[in-house]
Amino acid sequence: MATVDFLKKLVEQTPAECDEDHLPVVVYSVPQMPSRNAAIMKNGKSPLPEMLAGLRALRTQGAQLVAIPCNTAHFWYDEMCREGGLPIVHIVDAVCEQVEKSHDIHGPIGLLSTEATLAARIYHDRMSRRGIGMVVNCQEERDKYVTPAIDLVKRGHLTQAGDLVAMAVENLLERGAKTVILGCTELPVALDSIAYPQRYFCVDATRALAEATVSRALG
Amino acid sequence: MATVDFLKKLVEQTPAECDEDHLPVVVYSVPQMPSRNAAIMKNGKSPLPEMLAGLRALRTQGAQLVAIPCNTAHFWYDEMCREGGLPIVHIVDAVCEQVEKSHDIHGPIGLLSTEATLAARIYHDRMSRRGIGMVVNCQEERDKYVTPAIDLVKRGHLTQAGDLVAMAVENLLERGAKTVILGCTELPVALDSIAYPQRYFCVDATRALAEATVSRALG
Repeated sequence: MATVDFLKKLVEQTPAECDEDHLPVVVYSVPQMPSRNAAIMKNGKSPLPEMLAGLRALRTQGAQLVAIPCNTAHFWYDEMCREGGLPIVHIVDAVCEQVEKSHDIHGPIGLLSTEATLAARIYHDRMSRRGIGMVVNCQEERDKYVTPAIDLVKRGHLTQAGDLVAMAVENLLERGAKTVILGCTELPVALDSIAYPQRYFCVDATRALAEATVSRALG
Repeated sequence: MATVDFLKKLVEQTPAECDEDHLPVVVYSVPQMPSRNAAIMKNGKSPLPEMLAGLRALRTQGAQLVAIPCNTAHFWYDEMCREGGLPIVHIVDAVCEQVEKSHDIHGPIGLLSTEATLAARIYHDRMSRRGIGMVVNCQEERDKYVTPAIDLVKRGHLTQAGDLVAMAVENLLERGAKTVILGCTELPVALDSIAYPQRYFCVDATRALAEATVSRALG
């Protein structure tokens, strides 16, 4: 559903008056590839060979630019750029651009993500290079809200997941975050399925990726 | 957005407990191909060569089954089956299966579609073979509601389109239809964006296609 959400936001961000104005898109979505989380956290099988196979498939179809609507997959960003032969929009760079250009976004910035995205410092390294400080949920909140919400989205229980994500956001706002990054692509799917007033304080990494992709695709 | 809507419904219809349970999908979405409507109605350039190129691309990626979330494109169904080398789920067959298996669906059945889908009898021929009678909007209603609604979806104005589709549905219900087929894949996108109480009387061809596709993919 994260891929569907990305495609929806890609279409929404594209200025179009008719079919022809929309971007030509090829999608390679193979959810059977090894878990990104298990590979990082439990030394599981690496998904890199299958992600490179995906990049080869996209290149064969003439793709000129790649977006990957999975935050954790960006752990292998450098290898994918080096071996995939295609430019890839980095989801965290896209989020940083949103944060820097918005006057409504103030620090410190909260981050909701998978355990693996946190452990691998996928956001922390790029954000700290830009001087942006971050706040995260404590382990207990992650176990209680974020991880189960991600699993619920994969099982299709969106509103139930949305309620959990809302609670994780609340906790970060209480902890001092002024803005919260939805840094796993299941999270905006969950939150968009409920009417959540604090949604305004969230930066949607999927939407940021879509915006950066459209912007680069249209030059 | 019709492709996004189809993918969303495909994911929703798939029984899944985790990533791996979801179907592997490759998508080829090239909105620059010639207009299906113009080809049928105005003797414009045929989209068939580019649709066959799409089928070749999907076959190269290992696709075993194809769904095409565009009703009008089914005008070229026989050629695509013959020359594409892949089984294709026919959207009208998927709708007929829905109609036949549902006890809530009663005739006569209304049809909302593009002018080309109507003119080419894409629904009429298959439905009448199954003995299902149909009712359509008059030309004036189509010009006023259906055609502008489709264009509005392509431009991203979903709720405005939704209001027009609702009026087209109302007119068919008044004309005696007991059920209305949303027989152009922009129409459910429009109607899903508004809270429309009569949605219950509509058969969504996109959802029917997704259901038939999941059912065939899972054997």
